[in-house]
Amino acid sequence: MTSTTIATGTDLATLINVFTTTPGTAQPLVNLLVEATEQVMRHRPGFVSAAIHVSLDGTRVVNYAQWSSRDDFQAMLDDPTAQQHMKAVGDLAPADPRLYQVAAVHHA
Amino acid sequence: MTSTTIATGTDLATLINVFTTTPGTAQPLVNLLVEATEQVMRHRPGFVSAAIHVSLDGTRVVNYAQWSSRDDFQAMLDDPTAQQHMKAVGDLAPADPRLYQVAAVHHA
Repeated sequence: MTSTTIATGTDLATLINVFTTTPGTAQPLVNLLVEATEQVMRHRPGFVSAAIHVSLDGTRVVNYAQWSSRDDFQAMLDDPTAQQHMKAVGDLAPADPRLYQVAAVHHA
Repeated sequence: MTSTTIATGTDLATLINVFTTTPGTAQPLVNLLVEATEQVMRHRPGFVSAAIHVSLDGTRVVNYAQWSSRDDFQAMLDDPTAQQHMKAVGDLAPADPRLYQVAAVHHA
């Protein structure tokens, strides 16, 4: 089972992309994100991981992705093949992509 | 260093709460979430983890939290002390809390 680790004190650039969906578009969007990640994104330099989430009410899809650096993420944004896949994703649902840093992690 | 693990195939209930902030309210909100998590949430039955993120542009704060089950999460929502802390958080910034399942995890 593959997994993603969230931790403070790393140099990773964390992308959290929140898509606003309908129950009818959530699963097709998940499928498209899985395809784009497997075929394009994971082969880009600096890609670390992507974890694709779907809300139980079907109104949001969240891609939680990690890149080695902001420069690697920016280079991906400038890549024509990546742009083509991002356009297909954006045509399916409005996106709110932003880069984050991890401020704190707590456990029970 | 504590960390959170995202994986498919678990029974965890994942809460992703997206707050819309201004650069001036982002850090106070992070501080309040850290305080609420340490003092209240992490002592509730079924709490697993919380990872608090702040966007580099200061316009979003995201709490990525895991609970053992939806029932544990619902019991927290019904707890008066937890409600008091959630109200203080909600007074600082609009929130969009939703429960998610992990659909897929990919690596480079």
